[in-house]
Amino acid sequence: MSVLTTINQRKHFGGTQTRLEHASAVLGCTMRFSVFLPPQASNGQRVPVLYWLTGLTGTDENFSTKSGAQRVAAQLGLALVIPDTSPRGEHVPNDEAYDLGQGAGFYLNATQAPWQKNFQMFDYITCELPSLIEQNFPVNDKRAISGHSMGGHGALMIASKLPQRFVSVSAFAPIANPMRCPWGQKAFSAYLGDDQQDWKAYDTVELLKAHGLSLPMLVDTGTADEFLEKQLNTDALIAVAVKLPNARVRYQDGYEHSYYFVSTFMEEHLRFHATYLLA
Amino acid sequence: MSVLTTINQRKHFGGTQTRLEHASAVLGCTMRFSVFLPPQASNGQRVPVLYWLTGLTGTDENFSTKSGAQRVAAQLGLALVIPDTSPRGEHVPNDEAYDLGQGAGFYLNATQAPWQKNFQMFDYITCELPSLIEQNFPVNDKRAISGHSMGGHGALMIASKLPQRFVSVSAFAPIANPMRCPWGQKAFSAYLGDDQQDWKAYDTVELLKAHGLSLPMLVDTGTADEFLEKQLNTDALIAVAVKLPNARVRYQDGYEHSYYFVSTFMEEHLRFHATYLLA
Repeated sequence: MSVLTTINQRKHFGGTQTRLEHASAVLGCTMRFSVFLPPQASNGQRVPVLYWLTGLTGTDENFSTKSGAQRVAAQLGLALVIPDTSPRGEHVPNDEAYDLGQGAGFYLNATQAPWQKNFQMFDYITCELPSLIEQNFPVNDKRAISGHSMGGHGALMIASKLPQRFVSVSAFAPIANPMRCPWGQKAFSAYLGDDQQDWKAYDTVELLKAHGLSLPMLVDTGTADEFLEKQLNTDALIAVAVKLPNARVRYQDGYEHSYYFVSTFMEEHLRFHATYLLA
Repeated sequence: MSVLTTINQRKHFGGTQTRLEHASAVLGCTMRFSVFLPPQASNGQRVPVLYWLTGLTGTDENFSTKSGAQRVAAQLGLALVIPDTSPRGEHVPNDEAYDLGQGAGFYLNATQAPWQKNFQMFDYITCELPSLIEQNFPVNDKRAISGHSMGGHGALMIASKLPQRFVSVSAFAPIANPMRCPWGQKAFSAYLGDDQQDWKAYDTVELLKAHGLSLPMLVDTGTADEFLEKQLNTDALIAVAVKLPNARVRYQDGYEHSYYFVSTFMEEHLRFHATYLLA
């Protein structure tokens, strides 16, 4: 098992915000992540966990500093686990563009050189990280997952593929149909190769079309989102979501793509997840 | 009058977060600041204003992205005005250290070369900026002031010198007695010269000793603050505050110096100010 090293720890809303690092066997590099434990977790109580997946170019720090989630998580008694967006390091392949390589892992398992050795984010997020969390922190077996933009894609895609692992899923401005937008086409062709059949295994709209989803699902996207038209394919998500029993996909009037949007609706998403995490 | 240019504008908690810039006559450079207007301000209503002063090395963006203040300001109907921490630009004097020059204006009017031409932050914060705000935004004449660290010093010092301008003052981890700590001694000697009599005009503890303060005042500092012992002089502030009619200075157990601390107590500070701003 990886040894966890604490980088820093801060009291926050009565709970504890901790940044840690560990040697990831799955990714072949040192990985950082952050954990927020609510005050309830220091009383010997095991608490449920929301996993948060960050967008392109981000790290665990974007959500940790800008989302305002800890205030609500402290009230509700939820742990928050916030991984990085890709493997990192000088020996890890990279690309000069912001939307490929480090900071842009797309939460999938790469099959193509030079990426396939390190870019195994799907396995990291669904296996190695939760195993570490569940062995080292006072959490129970209730998990939810959410994320923003590339991380919204990650959350919806992962919940679609492993619905038994989660009680609920949500997303903010997700890249909902990556095989039909420039960001996704660039990443999928680099990480997965040219056969678009292989892309469908990581595409939310395709997964939902093929398998449905009975999990409660909540998605918000702003009408002033600067990536709405070219990258997000929200209408394609709506078209498939209307056939699901527990899915709501909403447009939020006038909001754009940043954490000014995310933080505005964070409390509502956390209370949505808490309905199921605390049930 | 300066012309205001909008750099960006984002919907946030139903209100509007705007970043602007203008040519400052007082500071002799282009200055950026941010304004949050709550939803109430778009209904033709004039709202009261909280001015926020940021700490060393910061800009208007620290508070704007990390404090969580807009959520509460939107509920209460408060505008937030967030200036930068110093004059800026290639032609503006600077120092290699993080605690002198750009990013470290200490909210005073410098008298010494090379600083005195641009480093007139006291006049900027108390004259030029509020004049701009009151001419360009739907605000009324109720003002409060708060800040963090160097900005906590600024808020307490400015409210002590101009109590008639504000209805209330608060601070997070303020540098309360700058003439008795390394940060303050370095800055005051550079900006104000070697005569310590001149320093007293910008030192909160000295101002409160000399003139008292009848304004409601709330100060929070964490017991785990890494600057508590050497820089903040909180005990000296407590010693003078206990003689004031409306002052509370509190230690918060286990909290350190960052916005993880600030955001934890932000709602309580805003509700404290709202008691007077909305009276």
